[in-house]
Amino acid sequence: MAIDRDEVRDLDEHDELAWLRAEFTLPAGEIYLDGNSLGPLPKATAKAVSDVVRRQWGRDLIRSWNTHHWLDLPLAVGNAIAPLIGAAPGEVVAADSTSVNLFKLVAAALRLRPGRPVVLSPSDNFSTDLYIVQGLAELLGGTVELRTMPTDDLAAAIDQRTALVMLTQVDFRTGRLHELAGWTRLAHRHGALILWDLAHSAGALPVDLAAAGADLAVGCGYKYLNGGPGAPAFAYVAARHHDQLTSPLWGWMGHQAPFAFDQGFTPAAGITRLLCGTPPILGLTALACGVELLREAGIANLRRKSIALGELFLRLVQERCEGGDFELASPADPEQRGSQLSLRHPQGYAIVQALIARGVIGDFREPDILRFGLAPAFLRYVDIFDAVAELTAVMTERAWDRPECRERARVT
Amino acid sequence: MAIDRDEVRDLDEHDELAWLRAEFTLPAGEIYLDGNSLGPLPKATAKAVSDVVRRQWGRDLIRSWNTHHWLDLPLAVGNAIAPLIGAAPGEVVAADSTSVNLFKLVAAALRLRPGRPVVLSPSDNFSTDLYIVQGLAELLGGTVELRTMPTDDLAAAIDQRTALVMLTQVDFRTGRLHELAGWTRLAHRHGALILWDLAHSAGALPVDLAAAGADLAVGCGYKYLNGGPGAPAFAYVAARHHDQLTSPLWGWMGHQAPFAFDQGFTPAAGITRLLCGTPPILGLTALACGVELLREAGIANLRRKSIALGELFLRLVQERCEGGDFELASPADPEQRGSQLSLRHPQGYAIVQALIARGVIGDFREPDILRFGLAPAFLRYVDIFDAVAELTAVMTERAWDRPECRERARVT
Repeated sequence: MAIDRDEVRDLDEHDELAWLRAEFTLPAGEIYLDGNSLGPLPKATAKAVSDVVRRQWGRDLIRSWNTHHWLDLPLAVGNAIAPLIGAAPGEVVAADSTSVNLFKLVAAALRLRPGRPVVLSPSDNFSTDLYIVQGLAELLGGTVELRTMPTDDLAAAIDQRTALVMLTQVDFRTGRLHELAGWTRLAHRHGALILWDLAHSAGALPVDLAAAGADLAVGCGYKYLNGGPGAPAFAYVAARHHDQLTSPLWGWMGHQAPFAFDQGFTPAAGITRLLCGTPPILGLTALACGVELLREAGIANLRRKSIALGELFLRLVQERCEGGDFELASPADPEQRGSQLSLRHPQGYAIVQALIARGVIGDFREPDILRFGLAPAFLRYVDIFDAVAELTAVMTERAWDRPECRERARVT
Repeated sequence: MAIDRDEVRDLDEHDELAWLRAEFTLPAGEIYLDGNSLGPLPKATAKAVSDVVRRQWGRDLIRSWNTHHWLDLPLAVGNAIAPLIGAAPGEVVAADSTSVNLFKLVAAALRLRPGRPVVLSPSDNFSTDLYIVQGLAELLGGTVELRTMPTDDLAAAIDQRTALVMLTQVDFRTGRLHELAGWTRLAHRHGALILWDLAHSAGALPVDLAAAGADLAVGCGYKYLNGGPGAPAFAYVAARHHDQLTSPLWGWMGHQAPFAFDQGFTPAAGITRLLCGTPPILGLTALACGVELLREAGIANLRRKSIALGELFLRLVQERCEGGDFELASPADPEQRGSQLSLRHPQGYAIVQALIARGVIGDFREPDILRFGLAPAFLRYVDIFDAVAELTAVMTERAWDRPECRERARVT
C-alpha cells in the first residue's frame, strides 16, 4: 500500500534528531534539498559571527589574536572536525579552500614518494581535484603525471609508479560511496599514498580515516559542516607523516615562530606547517558553529536518519513517479551511497527549475542529473514526502516545459 | 614654543576628514595606533555581515550565488580596490591570503621570464614574502633561486638572470617607502618583472601601479583596508600580462566554465584565472565595506592627513622625549615613509606593553622597534598628542620596568 503523509508525520514525531532542526534558520515555505551544496545557517552562527565582529574585532581589536585565541582557530576548528572523520587531535587543520589544500597535499605526497611520478584519479572526480593536479604537473614540468580513468579501472592501474591515489569518498554527481579501507589498502599494497576528498562525506556520515589507515584528506566547510558560503576548508595528514611533511606553500603561519620574522623558513611542528597566510577569523568562527551542532547530534545518529530519509525518498519516487521517467543515478543500496539521491532525466535542468519555483530547492549537475541532498541535520521526513509530491506534480503537469525553466543561471 | 593640546584640538576642528572617525567602532578610552596591523571595524561592516549571514545565507541560501552576486565578489571587490592602487577594472582580484597570492604571482612571473632563475628581494622583506619563494624554489628543485641582500645593494644585482624583483612598497618595520616607478623602471631595464607587496601602502597612500608600469602586486585586506581579521587579500596583474598569465593553482573558480565540470582545465579570461577555490563570502563582504569607506574619503586626502599626523607625532616626540632615548627608525622625510612611525629603543617591547596598559595600542617588532600606525581614517590629531603624552610618562616614570611589561605574548 502506498505510504501516506500521516505515516510520515509519525516518523518525525519519533525522530530523536527532531530537536536539531530548530537550531537552524530555514526559509519559510521551502524544502531545502541543497544542504550538500551550501548548508543552512545555524542560529548560533549568526550570534557568534556578530560577537566576533562587534566585540572581538570592534572592541578588543589587535589583542584578540591572543585573548580570543584567533591564532589558535585553525587548529581548534580542525580538532573539532577530527572526530567526525576519524582523526586524532592535531591531525586536522581548517584553512584556505579545498582547492588550495589539495595543492598542498598532492605536492606533499609527491615528495613523500620520490621517483613515483603518477597521480591516479577517477576521470569523473570533482573537477577542481583534477585541475589542481594538472596545474601542479604543468608547474613541475613533466615530473608529474595525472592519469585518469573510470573508477572501475582504477584498482588495476595502481603500480610502482603511483605516488598517490586520489578519490572523493562520495561522488558529487551520483552519491556513490567509495570504500575507505579497501581503497586505502589497495594503494598501500603498491606503496602508494591515498588522498581522500571528503567534501560530500564529512558531516554526512561517519568517516574513519584512522581505521582505514588513510594518509591524506581534504574536505569542504560549507556543505554538511554548515560553515557558510565559501567557509574555510580542512586538511588532514596522518600523524605518522608529519615529520616528513613538506607543504609547497611556505607561509608565515606555517613557520615555527611566525613573529620572529626570521629570514629563513623553518616549518612548525605537526600539522601547523600546513598553514600559510593569516587565518580568516569570520569564516572560521562560522565553521566552528556548524561543526559543533554536528558533534551534539552525533554522526552515527545523523547517518541513521540520512539513510532513512533516502529510503523514504526512493520508495516515494518509485510509488509516485513510476513509468520510467527517472533513472536512479545513485546506488540503490543505502550503504553504498552518501547523503544524497540523484536521478537522471533528459529534462533534468528544467525539472529542477520547476521544482525550485515550487519551493523545493535541489540542484542540477551536467549533463542530466537532478541532485537532492538529504541533509539529516535539518530535514524532516515530511519534507521528503512533500518534495516528492511536488516532483510528481511537476512531471504530471509538465511544469518543467516552460522557457523560464530552461534558462540557465551561472551557478547551477 | 612647545605645541599645546588646544592647538592640536584646533587641528581636529579644521580636519576635513573628521567625519570619517564616526564611521568606525572604536573602543572607548583607547588610542589605537595599530590600524596598520588590524584596521578597526567600520560600522557599516557589522550591518553588512549580519545581512549576508541572516538574509543572504539564512534565507536565500544557495541561490545567493546568483541573486546576491556572490560569485562576482572577488572581481567586484578587486574593482573597488583598483582605484586605490592605480589599477584598471579587471586587473585586481580579492581572494585567498597574501601568502597564497604571492605564490601564484611568483610562479607566474617565472613562467613569463623563462630561462631566468633568479628572484631578487631585500633580505629584510616581510618574512612570508621570502618564505613563499623559498618554498617554490624547494618545490621546483633548483630551477629557481631566491637572492636576498640589503636594499641598498639590490639595484646593482638586477641582471639578465633576474626574472623578478620583489619589493614591499612600505617596509613593515621602518615604514620606509620604496619608490614605485624608479624600481619598476630599473627592473624593466634588465628585462625583469617586478612584484610589489602593497600590504602597508594600499589604503594608506596613493599608489599608482599603472603610472609606474608595474607588473604584479599583492596586498592585504585587514590592515589599512579595514577588512577584518584574516580578510581576503588581493592580487594585481597588469592587463598586458593576462593572456600569458598561468597561475600554478588551477582551481575550479579559475576555470573558464566552473559549472561545466570539464575534466581538463581551461583558464578563464583575464584576472579571473587567478581564482582558485570557492570565494569566502563573509570575508569579502567585510572587505568591501572597508574599501568603500576609503573611496568616500579619497586616498589623496587620507595621505595628506597621514603626513600631518606623522609630522605632529615626530615633533611631539622631539619636544617631549628628548635626551636620546629613542632613535627614529623611519625616514624623517614624510615623503619617504608610509603611514607609520617607528622608534628604536632597547626596551622597546616593554615600553609598548606599558603603553598598552595605559590604553595606547601600538605594536612591537623584533628586535627593538616600537611601531605606531597612524591610520588617517579614524585617528584625531589629539590622539597623537595624548599618545605621545603617555609615551613621555612611561619613560619618565620608567613604567616599562615591570615584570608584566616584559612577559611576551604570542602575537606581538
